Amino acid sequence: MTHFKHNRAQRLGMRELAVTELAAGAGMKADIEEQPEVFSRLLDRGAGPIAEVAAQVVRWQPRSVIFTARGTSDHAALYAAYLTEIRLGIPAGLASPSAITVYHARPDLRDTLVVGVSQSGGSPDLVEVVRVAREQGAHTLAVTNDPDSPLAGAAELHVDVSAGHERAVAATKTYTAELLALLMLVEGIRGGDGVLPDGEYEALRALPSHAADVLADETAGQLAARYRFADRVVTTGRGYAYPTAREAALKLMETSYIAGLAFSGADLLHGPLAMTDGDIPVVAVVGSGPAGKSMRDVVHRLGERRTDVTVVGSVEVEGAATRLATPDVDERYAPILDILPLQRLALSLALHRGENPDAPRGLKKVTSTL
Amino acid sequence: MTHFKHNRAQRLGMRELAVTELAAGAGMKADIEEQPEVFSRLLDRGAGPIAEVAAQVVRWQPRSVIFTARGTSDHAALYAAYLTEIRLGIPAGLASPSAITVYHARPDLRDTLVVGVSQSGGSPDLVEVVRVAREQGAHTLAVTNDPDSPLAGAAELHVDVSAGHERAVAATKTYTAELLALLMLVEGIRGGDGVLPDGEYEALRALPSHAADVLADETAGQLAARYRFADRVVTTGRGYAYPTAREAALKLMETSYIAGLAFSGADLLHGPLAMTDGDIPVVAVVGSGPAGKSMRDVVHRLGERRTDVTVVGSVEVEGAATRLATPDVDERYAPILDILPLQRLALSLALHRGENPDAPRGLKKVTSTL
Repeated sequence: MTHFKHNRAQRLGMRELAVTELAAGAGMKADIEEQPEVFSRLLDRGAGPIAEVAAQVVRWQPRSVIFTARGTSDHAALYAAYLTEIRLGIPAGLASPSAITVYHARPDLRDTLVVGVSQSGGSPDLVEVVRVAREQGAHTLAVTNDPDSPLAGAAELHVDVSAGHERAVAATKTYTAELLALLMLVEGIRGGDGVLPDGEYEALRALPSHAADVLADETAGQLAARYRFADRVVTTGRGYAYPTAREAALKLMETSYIAGLAFSGADLLHGPLAMTDGDIPVVAVVGSGPAGKSMRDVVHRLGERRTDVTVVGSVEVEGAATRLATPDVDERYAPILDILPLQRLALSLALHRGENPDAPRGLKKVTSTL
Repeated sequence: MTHFKHNRAQRLGMRELAVTELAAGAGMKADIEEQPEVFSRLLDRGAGPIAEVAAQVVRWQPRSVIFTARGTSDHAALYAAYLTEIRLGIPAGLASPSAITVYHARPDLRDTLVVGVSQSGGSPDLVEVVRVAREQGAHTLAVTNDPDSPLAGAAELHVDVSAGHERAVAATKTYTAELLALLMLVEGIRGGDGVLPDGEYEALRALPSHAADVLADETAGQLAARYRFADRVVTTGRGYAYPTAREAALKLMETSYIAGLAFSGADLLHGPLAMTDGDIPVVAVVGSGPAGKSMRDVVHRLGERRTDVTVVGSVEVEGAATRLATPDVDERYAPILDILPLQRLALSLALHRGENPDAPRGLKKVTSTL
């Protein structure tokens, strides 16, 4: 990185630029590095308020849960939908805001919990969905990084993911804070009284130090050199790891303008496998549980086709060229750790390519689509 | 195209190859051209059986609908989820099979209709989802192109999309047949007795001739030359048009190995707009209704950034470089027509690039993921 900045400043013959350039990516870097601290804070100070929200959801006894979100938060919502179905046995899905906001659909939402997830809490279409959902009989919950936001105000309940001010436009710490907050919420509901069961809390308490270990590993930064000239990257995962694959693809697009193509491991074998060859690197997120088992077959088949595969996870996988190692935790915790080296990859790759990931062209923090 | 085949055969010095090459894409071409006939057949012979299925769904009175599908059929399922929410006022969503098949989630599915959509009806994971859903109290429906398939056998009800044998591996006529069958089903349910209301049937009866008109237009084939050297294409749409954007991206990937990146119009303004510049062509599907209105703003903003935009739809849009014209129909019918020029674009582009879209590398008709 230093090397790049020096060259670019020399090339442009501007000392001033060198100073500006030193700051490129500094915001995103700080956001990324703050994540262990964000997790600790959420577990310490957020546990009580989240338990109260969870207890209220237990009292409501929703028959189904609908999540609504956009962009990065949509990936956190997808993770939460898996958790809701698997851990709570409640049918869950993601709904597009446009059915309600554009076509004025008015579905019967009694016995349904509608959850809006948004870092800023400022997207008018999500606010409208939550408002209409209440009118249609739903219970409503907002998960945001701003308790004073319109979305937090529109919903009956609010979970504050408490990630603090995010410096870069590309979301990193607010994403993992959403994941952890939603996990705490679901496990609190599962506990029956909103409070995290002891064993669960102990396991979650290990996440901040696991996250610090992952961030201390320099491999992701080195991997950026490998992808310097790639024009696209395929990312893949199954189950809990699928949101990680999608978020990694979006992060690469937002910061490096690389074409990030995310597929579930199952879909990749279906059709898009046609396009993976040695020229298109694949990042495969492989858990240690049942979805990871299925993903190992996918990596093996990609290896047979001489595809350049980087595996993210706790296990060595045959056929992989590179590995971004993360600690061996339950598959449902892994998304909080597995995205970390991929955020660092996106940051390093952007800098290698001469982009400023703190302020990507054309990107705004709050969308104003209705 | 003839030009290309000739050159390639000459280059390889093989007369035999020239003969084989003449056939490249012939299957996909025939599948595409058959679509008006498929629509007529479905409207004539399929209306009765679909009305019976719709009448049974009316009797069941499901409180919510969950669709499950993969690949191309996932886009048909997404379309049906919009229809279900907007036209029937029943909450609907898409569920990933892996929660049930990989993590053994056992959600309470009483009062829920679970709909598996699959051309082949042969994907073991969808069969497993339908089997478990029945055990968990759901009513179940399969939508396939094969009444003797395992998925059709596993569900209580079956809709046969009656598209006939599909020659190419990349799905075209089975996709639009799924769209039309699902539309007929939803409108039949809305009718109250399963039968399509008169006005609705009249409107649908115009689709085969509309489709023939769209397929007679040569613009899509000409557009392929424009994309000959593109390494990626962004596709976008909102509401009913969003599945079209996703299906177009997948079709381009499957046949031309181009990186097809699909975004809802709202999401494109959020983050990924950063990556659209003059080097990345955008295909925008713009309806004549409320979602199209919102999409016109997106196209306008892309135009300001000097992005090369091709618009698919019935309206002229300021800022667009090219237009693939389709008839002015209700936005909920448009997906059945708007995908047609995009299928032709995928076919022509594949041939321009020297690929055989009938048998893409690595692509199989039935996935065997569990």
